[in-house]
Amino acid sequence: MVTIREVAKRAGVSVATVSRVLNKKGYVSPKTREKVEQSIHDLKYKPNDVARSLFKGKSKMIALLVPDIMNPFFPELARSVEDICNSYGYTFVLCNTDHSIEKELAYLNALQQKSVDGLIIVSSTLTGEHTKEINVPIISLDRTFDTNLSNVKSNNRQGARLAAEHLKVIDCKVIAHITGPENASNTEERKQGYLDVVKDEEWFSTDYIVSGDYNMQKAKDAIKKLLLEHPEIDGLFVGNDVMGAGALKAIEELEMQVPHDISIIGFDGISLGETTTPTLTTVAQPIYKMGSRAAELLIEQINDPDIPKKTVEFPVELIERQSTRKRR
Amino acid sequence: MVTIREVAKRAGVSVATVSRVLNKKGYVSPKTREKVEQSIHDLKYKPNDVARSLFKGKSKMIALLVPDIMNPFFPELARSVEDICNSYGYTFVLCNTDHSIEKELAYLNALQQKSVDGLIIVSSTLTGEHTKEINVPIISLDRTFDTNLSNVKSNNRQGARLAAEHLKVIDCKVIAHITGPENASNTEERKQGYLDVVKDEEWFSTDYIVSGDYNMQKAKDAIKKLLLEHPEIDGLFVGNDVMGAGALKAIEELEMQVPHDISIIGFDGISLGETTTPTLTTVAQPIYKMGSRAAELLIEQINDPDIPKKTVEFPVELIERQSTRKRR
Repeated sequence: MVTIREVAKRAGVSVATVSRVLNKKGYVSPKTREKVEQSIHDLKYKPNDVARSLFKGKSKMIALLVPDIMNPFFPELARSVEDICNSYGYTFVLCNTDHSIEKELAYLNALQQKSVDGLIIVSSTLTGEHTKEINVPIISLDRTFDTNLSNVKSNNRQGARLAAEHLKVIDCKVIAHITGPENASNTEERKQGYLDVVKDEEWFSTDYIVSGDYNMQKAKDAIKKLLLEHPEIDGLFVGNDVMGAGALKAIEELEMQVPHDISIIGFDGISLGETTTPTLTTVAQPIYKMGSRAAELLIEQINDPDIPKKTVEFPVELIERQSTRKRR
Repeated sequence: MVTIREVAKRAGVSVATVSRVLNKKGYVSPKTREKVEQSIHDLKYKPNDVARSLFKGKSKMIALLVPDIMNPFFPELARSVEDICNSYGYTFVLCNTDHSIEKELAYLNALQQKSVDGLIIVSSTLTGEHTKEINVPIISLDRTFDTNLSNVKSNNRQGARLAAEHLKVIDCKVIAHITGPENASNTEERKQGYLDVVKDEEWFSTDYIVSGDYNMQKAKDAIKKLLLEHPEIDGLFVGNDVMGAGALKAIEELEMQVPHDISIIGFDGISLGETTTPTLTTVAQPIYKMGSRAAELLIEQINDPDIPKKTVEFPVELIERQSTRKRR
């Protein structure tokens, strides 16, 4: 790859002069311009985005930080962000943070060094303290970790209410809830929605709320233990679909039948829920729309850093599949 | 973000001079150096990778082109490539090409403009004609599309033989094969491995080979049609696990039992195969190792463009789960 420096050297001018010719900005004498253009031609130099980004302080790069692209919720989010990046000419950078604050901070530092233009972050561990030093726009996605940032999410509390209400409607007598990681904002919102519906029920006890950490294996183990201790449970609202798949495996191992003995509702609406047997009833978020809205909002803020921050909350919907009994 | 240009302006020197100070290369008088350093200090300028990449022609960026990150084979590959990028200080760029040659060429062009240092490409549509103009190292991954490039793959033909042999060992009398897209090199290799084992069988007919395009829904539809026309089929070697999930759904809708009436083996070894009921017997590729080896090989070539190209072929293994009958 020919560099701008080689072009400058061959033309006998400074890098800044080559840049002025390339960007058509500032005064360059006709004679110098001709020398630079000849040098560009001779070396087959392609004026590249790196050169442009140096002089504009912009890289036309957007980064998405997610806990782990291998969790099947995130590929759909990544896809939608990348589609918008691509259509606006931004390069899409993906970072896996593993819920580690050290990794998150290392990425934030490295991405600033790369002059990334903006960040979309899914995090349960960052706070406003960590992001206040970042001088490019940031959108928090899926989870709210800093109320000073623009935020794109779904209505988790309402979704959880839909799930718990539906389990009541199909005559579940005791409804348990499997939660996500403690520090994730959507864990708390989904738990609150569940509590809104069940906390005044005669049967209710906090023993029916256990954590599965949004993880299939952890949820499977927690649910087996819970159902052995509490055989009265006949409805499960599981905080995401990955844990829903774990719930199905747990119940299969206990030789119980879904939905005959127990009905299950997940959350997210990822395609995994259509491949399980039985298929998983779920509260579906518009995942693709959430990712693309976050990317659009970020590009608006990159173009105009002064536009007011906003929170966009998408509605959710219950999708009935085979893991819940039919209504009478 | 403070730019190098602002630093140069404040110090009253050229951008090239600031660069020489930052990179500790070339002569700068002590007085000028002091002015530049004062300007860097006053403006709180952080010498960034963009400035460095401009002068070195390197961006410390690696891009991975995949058909679609939402196909569950690719997140694991993306994760492993990103892990290696991160550990070597490279930024990881992800591009979804949708098997579209137009999108692939547009990305190749855009990434060259960004001075990307190297490319890892999963493609069934590109050829050597398209990549010969690219002047950064390229690794082809999973599929071979240009024999002049280094290539990382698994032993697809041997894997297909393992699958077909296993179906014979468990007494399947008629074994069908569902293939991937016609132009993918691994479709052909897997088909050849299947043929190696069954082509001389008395029952064999090419009617038992149908395409599912590595797509769950297409495979499901194709398999329903095939089994209705050929009820004698009692073994299915399905070219990837996503189509294996489609096969399970097709057979469920036909009210047949897996593995009692028909045994199924997939390919890939993605985690999806553990969430289906029954779980899916599969030929597992070491996906994470393939991605990380490709990234390491690419970084070697970035550091030394003259090292010889090589092909790395990983062994595969059969993982027996519930979708195949037990051996007698």
